Parts: sequence; C-alpha cells; structure tokens
Amino acid sequence: MSTMQDKRQALDTDYELLYHPDIPGRGEFIRLVFEAAGVRYADIANEDQANYELVQQTCSPESTGDADGNPPPFAPPALKIRGAGRDGKDLVISQTPNILLYLGSKLGLIGSADHHLYYANQLTLTALDLANETHDTHHPIAVMKYYEEQKDAALIRSADFRETRMPKFFSYFERNLKSNESEGRGKYLVSSKLTYADTTLWQVLDGLFYAYPKEMASRSKEFPLLFDTFYPAIKAETWLQDYMNSGRRLQYSDGLFRRYPELDRQ
Amino acid sequence: MSTMQDKRQALDTDYELLYHPDIPGRGEFIRLVFEAAGVRYADIANEDQANYELVQQTCSPESTGDADGNPPPFAPPALKIRGAGRDGKDLVISQTPNILLYLGSKLGLIGSADHHLYYANQLTLTALDLANETHDTHHPIAVMKYYEEQKDAALIRSADFRETRMPKFFSYFERNLKSNESEGRGKYLVSSKLTYADTTLWQVLDGLFYAYPKEMASRSKEFPLLFDTFYPAIKAETWLQDYMNSGRRLQYSDGLFRRYPELDRQ
Repeated sequence: MSTMQDKRQALDTDYELLYHPDIPGRGEFIRLVFEAAGVRYADIANEDQANYELVQQTCSPESTGDADGNPPPFAPPALKIRGAGRDGKDLVISQTPNILLYLGSKLGLIGSADHHLYYANQLTLTALDLANETHDTHHPIAVMKYYEEQKDAALIRSADFRETRMPKFFSYFERNLKSNESEGRGKYLVSSKLTYADTTLWQVLDGLFYAYPKEMASRSKEFPLLFDTFYPAIKAETWLQDYMNSGRRLQYSDGLFRRYPELDRQ
Repeated sequence: MSTMQDKRQALDTDYELLYHPDIPGRGEFIRLVFEAAGVRYADIANEDQANYELVQQTCSPESTGDADGNPPPFAPPALKIRGAGRDGKDLVISQTPNILLYLGSKLGLIGSADHHLYYANQLTLTALDLANETHDTHHPIAVMKYYEEQKDAALIRSADFRETRMPKFFSYFERNLKSNESEGRGKYLVSSKLTYADTTLWQVLDGLFYAYPKEMASRSKEFPLLFDTFYPAIKAETWLQDYMNSGRRLQYSDGLFRRYPELDRQ
C-alpha cells in the first residue's frame, strides 16, 4: 500500500489520465512523460478507486461519445485535457501512441528540429510494438482467455520472441543510439535531449527486465549502448529517481509485463 | 503483369515510397493517402524491381543510418522526402502510422480543427491494430515461420478474432461514425471531409472482405453506418475509382490479408 501523503494532489491540473487502477500497464508510458516534464496530472482511478467508474463509462462499448463532442475511445488509456477541445470544451483523446504524440509535442519532449518529432514518433511506435509482442507471449491466442488456457502456445511463442524478436528489436534500438551517438552520446535516441521515445523505450526495457530476467541478463551483454549506457543513464535522471521514490510508481503484476518463469530462458 | 503505360511516371516527385514489390501490404495505407490527395509519388520497387535493393539496403538489419543523418528504419515501409531533413537533405521516416501522420498533416487530410488531428490519428492507429490482428490470425506463433507450421493455433486464434475481436472493432468504428454523424453523415470519421483515418479504415475493411468473405458477409449486416454508408461511399469517391482503374492498385495475395478458407466462418 502506498501512503496517501505520497500521492500527488493533482486537483489543479489540466490533465486527467483515465486508466485501470493498480497496474503500470500502458498508462505508465503516459505517466512517465508527465513525470519527465514535471507536469502535474490526475491519475484518477489510482487517486480514488471510485473514479474507475468514470473510466469505464468513457470507454464503454456502448458509448457514442461525450457531451463535449469527443468520440468514444476503443479502450483505456484515455486522456482528458481541460479546455483543449471544441469551443473550449474538454478534449478526450485515446490510443497510447496518440496520447504520447500529443503530450510530447505540448510538453517539449520531441527533440530540437522539426523532423525530430517523426524520428521520436517512429521509435516510440516500435517500442510499443515490442511491448505488444511481449503481451502476446502470454496471450498468443485470445486476449480475453486466461494464460493457463493458452499456455502451450505461449511456450512456443515466447521461445520465438526470445530467440528472434528480442534481438531484432534490441539491434534496432542499439543502431539508432549509434546513429545519434554524436548528439545523444548513447543516452538519448533523438537529438541531444530527452524525448518521449526515451521514456517509452526505457519503460519497455524495464518491463522486460521484470518479465524475462534470465533472457535479459544474457541479451543485455550483446547491446552495450542500449544496456550499459541508455538504460542506466535514463534511470539515473533526477526526475525518474524522484518518481521511483515518490510512492506513485506502481508495481508490475498481471498486466502487460508478467513474470512466468516457464516462458523465460531455461 | 500491369502495363507500363498505366504506371504513373513519378520522376518529378518529392516522395519515394520504399516498400516490398507486388503486394499491397502496409504500403497500401500510404499509397491511398497520396492517391486521395492527388499527389505524385514514386513507388520505387514496383516501378523497377531493381530498386528493391535500395529498399533492402535502407532497412538492412546492419544499418546505422544513412549519409544524410537519418536513423535506420525497423522494417519497410519507409518514406523518403526530398529536402525535408537535416540542413535541407532528404528525410527518411518509417513506421506506417508515423508516415501517415506526416503525410496526413502535409497533404491536408486531418480535418478542420486542431484537435481533429488527434481524432484522426487515434482512429488510424486502431484501424492498423485491426490490420495487425488480422495478420496474427495466420501467424499467431512466429512471424518468420510458414502458416502451415502454425495452422492449429491459427484455427483457434481466427475463431476468437471473428467472434470477439471483429465485432469489438466494428462496433468502435460504427460508434465513431455515429458520434460524427451530424458532420460526417456516416461517410467521414472526422469532421465533414476526408482524413487519413477514412482511407486507412477503408483499406482494412477492403482487406477483410478479401480475407474473410463469409464472416464479413454476415458481420456487415450488424453495422449499418460502417458497411452501408462508409465503405461504399469512400469506394465511390472519384480518386479511389480512378486509382482502382489505373493499373497501380495491386492485388491481394500472400501479404497482410490472406484468404485461407479454413480460417473463415464455416
């Protein structure tokens, strides 16, 4: 249990995150952008479980949108931004990479030149693809069924994931760090400063260290810029250290990143 | 074989699409945006198979970027834009939704208000998620293995896809059309004009009609705005009719959308 005094009081914020309570999940990519920018946000279902009804209402499979003219989301996370919608009403947007694009642009986490936005965005999309493929290792057949019902397929899929997909993705990120080394010094993917691609990739790697500890212990030796420079350098940034010490950072459990030892390297 | 005189001569264009030849695949989402905007583009590997080497070079798993300072792509499609990169050099970007975001913004396919971009982008991301899930029905276990090696898992996954995922996605798009009905009249997802969300969703539906003809014949009765208004109305637009009659539109085969009758409704 986190102590209530550790929870950020966010009543004065323009931003409300609408997501499931208690898991980092896809909401964590969005939280990290706020934390990196030092901008207050309301994580409504974690601040008060009663608010989860509002999340479910907004993302209801019956909804045809809200009274402010916003269309319905497909699924959480969604983000409400005060006054940014039609005629100064609240704006509600959804889809993790779309929310990151919005916040990255508004909060200055997109590098320094115009075209850096598209570099940051493509890296973010690929990091989120890796997160989705991680999810699919424990749910290869049907997202609504239990892991135990699809364990045989999960064993085959996770072996393929560890042996072919992980190194393919890690090589891509390593080569991107290399491509930007003169500016980013192995620490930043785009330009010479933090972008939402860095925060997103960092979270995916951190989730993989939780889910696949043995595989990651071995793989991390193969990609030095990614694992000896990028991952620890982002982790050491003051904002991330402050966040991890704040009580706001949620523990991994049965979300996107799950630890099933039988799926890890044996 | 398509006749060469049908191929658009695109030597004078600022845009080069780098993608696999002969299949619509993910490249088709990008082609449709150019076709809708009436903007010339070079589809380099389809105009001359010899150019495919350039695509493979750009997306090589060894590349650490190009001489113009562009980072390496993860996989095709990529897009080269003349003069839009660092110091007026060529810009190379990748990831389908990132390329669509770029082109949608540059070519005026993002609606009429500032926040419409984020509505169009979230709908596009969800349509592409549906396309990815369609791909995963024939490759549920390992993307690099043959369909025949994962057919048992494909039968289970495609049943779940048809029974739970398709209606969930279709309901979402139907409710978005409903939410925007006063402006879009069931024909457009965002505002009162064509956006890249419309072209992308249309292509996913068209691919699904190819891959799952029986399931679609039945499902299409459940979502009237989507299938009686949106799909035929976009198909009837002059630019799309012209494109389909041009010889440039590629046939479906063994790409993202595949027709395996055993995976369809029985």
